[in-house]
Amino acid sequence: MAGLFITFEGGEGAGKSTQAQRLEAHLRAAGREVVRTREPGGTPGAEALRQLLLFGGHDLSLRAEILAHFAARCDHVDQLIRPALARGAVVICDRFIDSTLAYQGYGLGRADPGILHLIAVLGAQVGLAPDLTLVLMLERAGALARLRARGGPADRYEAADEAFHARVADGFDTIARAEAGRCVTIAADRPVDVVAGDIARLVDARLETDAPGAA
Amino acid sequence: MAGLFITFEGGEGAGKSTQAQRLEAHLRAAGREVVRTREPGGTPGAEALRQLLLFGGHDLSLRAEILAHFAARCDHVDQLIRPALARGAVVICDRFIDSTLAYQGYGLGRADPGILHLIAVLGAQVGLAPDLTLVLMLERAGALARLRARGGPADRYEAADEAFHARVADGFDTIARAEAGRCVTIAADRPVDVVAGDIARLVDARLETDAPGAA
Repeated sequence: MAGLFITFEGGEGAGKSTQAQRLEAHLRAAGREVVRTREPGGTPGAEALRQLLLFGGHDLSLRAEILAHFAARCDHVDQLIRPALARGAVVICDRFIDSTLAYQGYGLGRADPGILHLIAVLGAQVGLAPDLTLVLMLERAGALARLRARGGPADRYEAADEAFHARVADGFDTIARAEAGRCVTIAADRPVDVVAGDIARLVDARLETDAPGAA
Repeated sequence: MAGLFITFEGGEGAGKSTQAQRLEAHLRAAGREVVRTREPGGTPGAEALRQLLLFGGHDLSLRAEILAHFAARCDHVDQLIRPALARGAVVICDRFIDSTLAYQGYGLGRADPGILHLIAVLGAQVGLAPDLTLVLMLERAGALARLRARGGPADRYEAADEAFHARVADGFDTIARAEAGRCVTIAADRPVDVVAGDIARLVDARLETDAPGAA
């Protein structure tokens, strides 16, 4: 059975973690091995880099921040994602390269061509693209309401200003349009069960296409 | 007055730090602004990455380790080295891209073409090469004697096996031959004062060439 690499993308509060959990449960019920993970992080070294990036307060240059995200990503791909795909698992990852492009490229970098080029160069070096990317779209007002309900300490992105979050949202929109074959935009302002049902149907269809002989 | 970017390279115990300090004193006595720094590190964020890389024990994949070194390097270049060069300082840096090539490319990576390519791609993204690289060459027996005399805790490279250090030394040799215009090999098995005198003459000549009108 072939592995499948699925990523969830979108701004904070769009429901990525909840939907990733729901998709994991759906696929496990169908007998698939599922590895659910997240970025930045997913391996011990990448989690250490996550801590440094999100809570370290070191004020890295934007280029350095992007490289550190890709350092964490390469560890994650090399030590967790590729081995899981090789043994046929479905890997569900909360954020991947698209998040670096949206947050660092469009959000912090304001679509500076040199920064977008750096991310493209590094993305090519990773050498692994998702088979399917689910971009959860939610108006910022709705996302803020969810984040307030969630509570807990805000990381540096959650604490950024609204103009930043608008650029990030535009970035995700641009990415989803540019890579329409890989990305599916999901309206996340609906009940959790409805969104989960849509996603389950999408993924089931993809699994049947990839492995027509599988049950 | 134009800035000058000088790097020291070579294995552990070859005397890089001592010679960098001697060169700094020589140039300061001549009235130059000098910024002496080191890699990995040199800025708060890069020092945090240094800690993670050298003492974190996280066992990153080799690609991730290389990317994390370049993350630290980009922060160092963006926030310390480029601004110093722009105001006319001489920047003396203990290790730079050549060390990543020698340690990760030739030492850990055993000259794997994919790894050497990754380092070349990242090196090009940094966008800054040294004006002069002083490669201190010392037979391993002499280096080990100096390291034992120095004492203190060994980092992960100092603690590696002898075959690794032989590959690193061959790597530095390969780099110095391939980039003979930038690199000068210095025999480091001589008294500190003699080596320091050679280096001072080399750098003085370079500064006169770069700025013929300067005193």
